[in-house]
Amino acid sequence: MGFINNIREKSPLIHFITNYVTVNDVANATLAIGASPIMTDEINDAPDMQNICNALVINTGTLNKNTVVSMIESGKRANELGHVVVLDPCGAGATPYRNEVIKKLMDEIKFDCIKGNISEIKALANVSSKTKGVDASEADQATRKNLKDVFKFAKDLSKATGAVIAITGVIDVIVDKNTAYITDNGCKEMRAITGTGCMTAGVIAASIVANRDNRLEAVLNSIVAVGLSGELAKEYAKGTGSLHIGLIDELSNMTDEKIEKGAKVEKFEI
Amino acid sequence: MGFINNIREKSPLIHFITNYVTVNDVANATLAIGASPIMTDEINDAPDMQNICNALVINTGTLNKNTVVSMIESGKRANELGHVVVLDPCGAGATPYRNEVIKKLMDEIKFDCIKGNISEIKALANVSSKTKGVDASEADQATRKNLKDVFKFAKDLSKATGAVIAITGVIDVIVDKNTAYITDNGCKEMRAITGTGCMTAGVIAASIVANRDNRLEAVLNSIVAVGLSGELAKEYAKGTGSLHIGLIDELSNMTDEKIEKGAKVEKFEI
Amino acid sequence: MGFINNIREKSPLIHFITNYVTVNDVANATLAIGASPIMTDEINDAPDMQNICNALVINTGTLNKNTVVSMIESGKRANELGHVVVLDPCGAGATPYRNEVIKKLMDEIKFDCIKGNISEIKALANVSSKTKGVDASEADQATRKNLKDVFKFAKDLSKATGAVIAITGVIDVIVDKNTAYITDNGCKEMRAITGTGCMTAGVIAASIVANRDNRLEAVLNSIVAVGLSGELAKEYAKGTGSLHIGLIDELSNMTDEKIEKGAKVEKFEI
Repeated sequence: MGFINNIREKSPLIHFITNYVTVNDVANATLAIGASPIMTDEINDAPDMQNICNALVINTGTLNKNTVVSMIESGKRANELGHVVVLDPCGAGATPYRNEVIKKLMDEIKFDCIKGNISEIKALANVSSKTKGVDASEADQATRKNLKDVFKFAKDLSKATGAVIAITGVIDVIVDKNTAYITDNGCKEMRAITGTGCMTAGVIAASIVANRDNRLEAVLNSIVAVGLSGELAKEYAKGTGSLHIGLIDELSNMTDEKIEKGAKVEKFEI
Repeated sequence: MGFINNIREKSPLIHFITNYVTVNDVANATLAIGASPIMTDEINDAPDMQNICNALVINTGTLNKNTVVSMIESGKRANELGHVVVLDPCGAGATPYRNEVIKKLMDEIKFDCIKGNISEIKALANVSSKTKGVDASEADQATRKNLKDVFKFAKDLSKATGAVIAITGVIDVIVDKNTAYITDNGCKEMRAITGTGCMTAGVIAASIVANRDNRLEAVLNSIVAVGLSGELAKEYAKGTGSLHIGLIDELSNMTDEKIEKGAKVEKFEI
Repeated sequence: MGFINNIREKSPLIHFITNYVTVNDVANATLAIGASPIMTDEINDAPDMQNICNALVINTGTLNKNTVVSMIESGKRANELGHVVVLDPCGAGATPYRNEVIKKLMDEIKFDCIKGNISEIKALANVSSKTKGVDASEADQATRKNLKDVFKFAKDLSKATGAVIAITGVIDVIVDKNTAYITDNGCKEMRAITGTGCMTAGVIAASIVANRDNRLEAVLNSIVAVGLSGELAKEYAKGTGSLHIGLIDELSNMTDEKIEKGAKVEKFEI
């Protein structure tokens, strides 16, 4: 009963093709929330790994031509097996190559959730052949003033892709085709730690596997769980090093009760 | 005098071809126990690195076709030079490719120690042409009830390979052709940290280099040192993040005296 | 006003092609000092990443034939764009391949700073076609007794390369063609943590970007900042794990005032 509890009970096995910068934190965050991680990006190994896993997370942070092939083939295998697939289009928009890769991933794989900051999600929408591109004049940051525009953009992307769209920032926005949530959890100090977004993607994958009938809320609860862990850790952290470790500590102690008490969430029908 | 003290005095240089998930912890654990780590997996570089090192650790966690070639050539070079070689068959049994790689490693390299959980060690025994395979009905976990079976299996594998066999789990089992040790050190919370096994492989390599006349006990003391570090850290850890850091702290403060006091070990002639 | 303050105000974006052992610490140290890191080593991606960055850091720790090509092309692009480029010749001298790579990097890229321990810097000087090699009899460690020799060697290398030369050790030596600084900051326990040198390279790059008119002092202040962070963390660290985390904490709280108060620096005209 409860999203986190379901993860801890079902203990899903999550396969990651993720960047080498934050991979250790991703593994430890996945364990902290009650799931198990396995990392492999070799083409002869990665697609077959889906046979024993429950989900795939693709993160494009330190992509290379070999791992991109593994991302695509593992994604296809995951889709065939009906597994949960999460995309973290890390660095989308930064280079032409990244955009080309993102386009391929979007063309060939069906995702359950696409999570990134607003510039990554916009870059993704611009290159995807499933969407008609983003007006350059659109918001550069989700704020309470432009929520309607952000919801419209995310809802269109969700309809085009079938995925829950999670846009992280000062306010996090989680949207599918009918409903939007915003959350204020987290603290600004978390921006000075690398990998909080990458870790969140792992928690999202575990949460969707364990809560498949409530995909949107599974994503929401994951983002709240990581944000709240950061808030709790901030109370005693002496700097960004101990904030980083405290965040993992709090994630390992996270419960549905803490989320119920600490979540700062608003819901919108869209 | 004493296994840990010998490591700190001789300060061996250990070459790792290891997975990118836990590599930082492996390096820091190796330093914490008094040895020095160097990582390289490029075929033009890795075999030559053996010329200035004392040992090689091969971990197959995030293997790829390039690093596998480096594993084999570095392993051969290490064998030629009479260096200590440790295998951590991380993920053995998970995919056909992993099994194929493990078979090659077993065929081409002579190991001083092979360390893994029981499913990895069984998968390895099944693919190795040096062994006759494992009966599917054999134990899935070493327990006090099936110790005799586990000892027999590990003893046969030790005889076939010439390596000390270390099977980690709730009870750790360390076996060569005549003697078996079991140890109860460690705590269940350590399973929620990635990399404790990978770190242990580095400590094992350093310990064998520094205690070559007592290879079996060198492995035993390494496993006890890491397990005991986890136990000590657990006393003050607030979650898995601080347990992880505490484990490194305790490893850096580990002494032979602490091991003598805290080791939970039983010895068996087999 | 002040070197660290300038980093925090300008928040440079630093592109790293760095080893996978310490990459997470490098990213977190870069954030802690007030800059932003981005890592990519794919040839189709890395040179283009310079278009949105302010600097490049090349670290040869876990080089491979693919990343070496990316190092060279990214370095050339960075030079074309007038960006700051820092070389950390990690492991120079350890194998023939490393020396060959270092030679290529030195031949094709102009560096603002080259930072390493004395054996790395000597190996680099020996292979570079810009220098005439190092006498084998020269100092193996910078000490107060051989400062004059070390200054001469570093000054010649600085003149030949145009780079600030930073030689780290018990005493750190920072030299350009006219001036030398030595600093005593840091503590011996830092040697038991991997990555302090790699982190320093990121801080150096950020500091030069933010303080381009005072390149030599920008490097000096970076080395003092990391050393002082280690000293401050040592006061409460319980072992090498918490020293590691404390170092990041202190770096995230570092100010020019703390440096002014804590720096142990001497200046020499050479």
